[in-house]
Amino acid sequence: MTLTTTAVLAGGPVVPSRSVLRPLGPDEVRISGGFWADTQELNATVILDHCETWMERIGWIGNFDRAADGTVADHHDGIEFVDSEVYKLLEAMAWELGRHPDGALEARYSALVDRVAAAQEPDGYLHTAFGRPGQRPRYSDLEWGHELYCFGHLIQAAVARARSGHPDDVLVRVARRLADHVDRVFGEEGRDAICGHPEIEPALVELGRALGEPRYVELARIFVERRGRRTLATTLFQGSDYFLDDMPVREATVLRGHAVRAAYFTAGAADVAVETGDDTLLDAVQRQWGRTVAHRTYLTGGIGSHHQNEEFGADDELPPDRAYAETCAAIGSVMVSWRLLLQTADPSHADLIERTLLNAVLVSPRADGRAFYYANTLHQRQLASETHDDELSERAEANLRAPWFEVSCCPTNVARTLASVGAYFATADDDGVQLHQFADLEVDTALPDGRRVALAVRTGYPFDGRVVVSVTEASEFTLCLRIPAWSRGRARASLNGGALPVDGDTLRVRRAFAAGDELVLELDTSPRFTVAPGGVDAVRGTVAVERGPLVLCLESVDLPEGIAFDRVRIDTATTPESTATGASVRLIVDDGRDDASDDWPYRRLDAAVTARSGRAVTADLMPYAHWANRGPSLMRVWIPAAG
Amino acid sequence: MTLTTTAVLAGGPVVPSRSVLRPLGPDEVRISGGFWADTQELNATVILDHCETWMERIGWIGNFDRAADGTVADHHDGIEFVDSEVYKLLEAMAWELGRHPDGALEARYSALVDRVAAAQEPDGYLHTAFGRPGQRPRYSDLEWGHELYCFGHLIQAAVARARSGHPDDVLVRVARRLADHVDRVFGEEGRDAICGHPEIEPALVELGRALGEPRYVELARIFVERRGRRTLATTLFQGSDYFLDDMPVREATVLRGHAVRAAYFTAGAADVAVETGDDTLLDAVQRQWGRTVAHRTYLTGGIGSHHQNEEFGADDELPPDRAYAETCAAIGSVMVSWRLLLQTADPSHADLIERTLLNAVLVSPRADGRAFYYANTLHQRQLASETHDDELSERAEANLRAPWFEVSCCPTNVARTLASVGAYFATADDDGVQLHQFADLEVDTALPDGRRVALAVRTGYPFDGRVVVSVTEASEFTLCLRIPAWSRGRARASLNGGALPVDGDTLRVRRAFAAGDELVLELDTSPRFTVAPGGVDAVRGTVAVERGPLVLCLESVDLPEGIAFDRVRIDTATTPESTATGASVRLIVDDGRDDASDDWPYRRLDAAVTARSGRAVTADLMPYAHWANRGPSLMRVWIPAAG
Repeated sequence: MTLTTTAVLAGGPVVPSRSVLRPLGPDEVRISGGFWADTQELNATVILDHCETWMERIGWIGNFDRAADGTVADHHDGIEFVDSEVYKLLEAMAWELGRHPDGALEARYSALVDRVAAAQEPDGYLHTAFGRPGQRPRYSDLEWGHELYCFGHLIQAAVARARSGHPDDVLVRVARRLADHVDRVFGEEGRDAICGHPEIEPALVELGRALGEPRYVELARIFVERRGRRTLATTLFQGSDYFLDDMPVREATVLRGHAVRAAYFTAGAADVAVETGDDTLLDAVQRQWGRTVAHRTYLTGGIGSHHQNEEFGADDELPPDRAYAETCAAIGSVMVSWRLLLQTADPSHADLIERTLLNAVLVSPRADGRAFYYANTLHQRQLASETHDDELSERAEANLRAPWFEVSCCPTNVARTLASVGAYFATADDDGVQLHQFADLEVDTALPDGRRVALAVRTGYPFDGRVVVSVTEASEFTLCLRIPAWSRGRARASLNGGALPVDGDTLRVRRAFAAGDELVLELDTSPRFTVAPGGVDAVRGTVAVERGPLVLCLESVDLPEGIAFDRVRIDTATTPESTATGASVRLIVDDGRDDASDDWPYRRLDAAVTARSGRAVTADLMPYAHWANRGPSLMRVWIPAAG
Repeated sequence: MTLTTTAVLAGGPVVPSRSVLRPLGPDEVRISGGFWADTQELNATVILDHCETWMERIGWIGNFDRAADGTVADHHDGIEFVDSEVYKLLEAMAWELGRHPDGALEARYSALVDRVAAAQEPDGYLHTAFGRPGQRPRYSDLEWGHELYCFGHLIQAAVARARSGHPDDVLVRVARRLADHVDRVFGEEGRDAICGHPEIEPALVELGRALGEPRYVELARIFVERRGRRTLATTLFQGSDYFLDDMPVREATVLRGHAVRAAYFTAGAADVAVETGDDTLLDAVQRQWGRTVAHRTYLTGGIGSHHQNEEFGADDELPPDRAYAETCAAIGSVMVSWRLLLQTADPSHADLIERTLLNAVLVSPRADGRAFYYANTLHQRQLASETHDDELSERAEANLRAPWFEVSCCPTNVARTLASVGAYFATADDDGVQLHQFADLEVDTALPDGRRVALAVRTGYPFDGRVVVSVTEASEFTLCLRIPAWSRGRARASLNGGALPVDGDTLRVRRAFAAGDELVLELDTSPRFTVAPGGVDAVRGTVAVERGPLVLCLESVDLPEGIAFDRVRIDTATTPESTATGASVRLIVDDGRDDASDDWPYRRLDAAVTARSGRAVTADLMPYAHWANRGPSLMRVWIPAAG
């Protein structure tokens, strides 16, 4: 087994010691404008503050102060894993500070870290809800206590800080002491146990990579291998599969159980496989992920189709109206895809990252960044209640955005993801640079042999398919641009005005570039109808409309007055037209259905009242990620097809 | 307000003091042979014993002994509401003994009642899990403790016994003391609170009816009116709607929340409305039930489409693969329908009772009566695990029959329902008798003016649609037979060989019958294709096949070797043919689908691989209620339609 021992104190969230593609750090790729810059700006100026303010207000940050002064056993606010939300906020702040230093944010970050650090116990343990007199003993509830899960998020925050120019940050030292403590308790010689909620696995690998400490990678490996032996106690409703504890990772064929747990664990297993050179394990991860993508993923990229247990359903069981598709699970999907993209260079992983970020993740925050979806339905059947911006929501699984939840894992997860999202846009290899996602970017990196690659990307993406790459420094290298699957066979490209052949999943140009060379890629973002495979029973007879990387949806607020939301079908014989951000489509309003009666609803086929096509109306479909920004609305992604 | 004060010590489970149709007691209507007699025989000879043996083995009955000898606080087996299972078994035994006296069963019943009675405390309270030193205090957890719920089932058992010729039974006295205790604690002057799980409401009304005690009806009224003020504490996952505590019953428009709670409560509200002459309340119940039937009921009659919280979904949200359709909820549906049938004489209620009993209830017990479904899916996507007849199942919500569950409400509920099922078959009014359900029956009752109605019914129902009614005693009266909705316009009838006109939902014959007069009704049980309304998205593009009152299903074990279950569509252009119990249909096996790949599954409409019709095969569909009696199988009720 080969374990890395070289500390890598730069880069983004994932810096494997070996990979086909090398991730670029915030110093090498920067989002400089456009859609994604606006999104990061919203995160920096609103979401971070929103998270901090809420957690201060409801005592989750105060838990650390009370842990330090000895009073937390008498007064602990929130459920047992709220520490992790503070850590995810710290991670978001650390990435944001690395991206864009800011004195005021730096001061807030440091003050918060000091409060966390003060709660660490002499042996390194750090949790506000366990271990003190009057609290439950440490590690007395591994199934549900989430201690190691919380530690994982602290460690991820420390990694972000270490990689942003602060390898000796207080938080990095806290994380090291904490990891050492976990190693003593749960390492090879320690207690043969695992945490109910994976997360520490990828965190430990990354800390090992960042600090050059193979012991942490080894500990992650142990945790990965230990899962699957049914050691976690099950309950009436949660079986071993819920915890991914039903079979060893090497034997599994698909992600199952609790979707966030499954995705985080799979990411950790991939990390372990890479660092230990365990290609068998990496193959197992790839196999599982392949089937999960093909059979357990929503059109939006969301995963997890059961509200019950926030779990995956069976293959092809993807009901839009009961999509749970938790925001955190979508983030977990990006984590897995990114790891596999780095190891395989297969653009399908970048396709899914694009889809998932733009649809399944960005649907969570409201346009103003002050309310979030936790569960993300693809079909809203009845108007959700209004939420109040001042009200803590008990019901995270309800289909409504709320400012904060009793279980509020998603807002801070969105924050850390947006702060570091540039990491997923470009990579390098020995001969050049690969652009996986499109945005206004500045890329400036050195290849192993010293060649410099410096580019500027400008685009109206994701609403416009034209991507202009300008080379800003003369150099010979290979420039690769992903051709998204939805534009394959429909993309055009030119270099300095001369047409380039475009074929397959990648536009690849190798030459001695001059400064000022301009490569233009034109992707086809005209709206298109999309269908699901026959096995996905829940959407038979419907189509979705996509526009470039965006999944669109029909909202009731966009229907003409007086038309019932459940009476429209979409005319698939009429080509939809682009609007500024969505598409205009032709809908057929059905008459003659008698669904509204209170009679027995099922009818003999030969006596059924067939929907009669009534008048046609034109309606705008909006990006799914933007839905419900104009108040409660009915919504559907999959629209019954007429014609 | 008018409250009954006349004790009615005969009849079945529901004996309202006023009704349009009068229910008949076990002395007036008796199932004498055929399908339902076989089912009752299985219940009497296997299911009752199965339930008793399991509850003895795992200590649930022993809880009462330990409560009596003071040791139960140290050793209580099962969750807090297992007392109710013993009571439902007692109710089943009581009805069975009323139907068919049997010395051995009588002795078992009495022994069990004595053990229960010994656990009653001096003030009438009776619960094995609360109130003793070392246990939680009485009524300290009204949301989840299920104390009043358990009392309700004890009371129902006592009512069954009182109405079976034993008004002074030990259990009746126990129930009376218990009800008096509840009245003191929760009555008008008592604590302003309700139980998290309704059940005591219909029980108290029935006890009031049986014993002629208006105080019990009044107490039920209080409980019904108190619900809906959000007094029950909610949790992260269970809101007020879960408990039906979100709005007063008079304001509600549909059943919602936990399906069993909702159905039991609605039955109780109907009972209170009837006894108090509150037609406004009865109208509210009818409105709610109408919408529930039209928009929240599966083809099988099952209700409750969410596994999460065992809840109703939104209108028309009826996914077959995630149908929870708990057996107990189906029984609750029969309870509601029966009450409304008695009050309205509307045959649609009898239609739904038939559908629900034959499909949603009878699917629960395995053919041998030794394993039960708790949740009843309409689409089994992956093979369920085999269960072992000796193994207690933790996971009641899994799609598998198990001999017993940690939460085992369904087997005993099936037992009490089957023991008393004859009660739902016929009624009387001032001028005659109404046959609502078809079976070999002996009916012998007196009309208010003294006329005697004596009939014998013979039929091969539910597999054969021919029903022969022989008048066994000369008398002038009106004989009504329900024409099931599925045979309306397709039924024929004759009296002594002479054709009768058949029209609408009822065959009505009034005449001076002679002994030996024979009325023959021929219902059309030829298999038919059934479709759902357009609003039920989850089954768009599919059909079900029904045959008379039976919903059929396709099981993978009935497919020819080598044909994938998810590759078949049903040819709706070919008329299905009857088999002994089901139908033979023509299936089209689709080629050309590429669902099996691990690629991104969603396709452009213009590039999608359309299913190509391959070879046709013939397959037998079986009654849904019989599925999985030949080992684990894939199954679907709604089959994708070809043609």
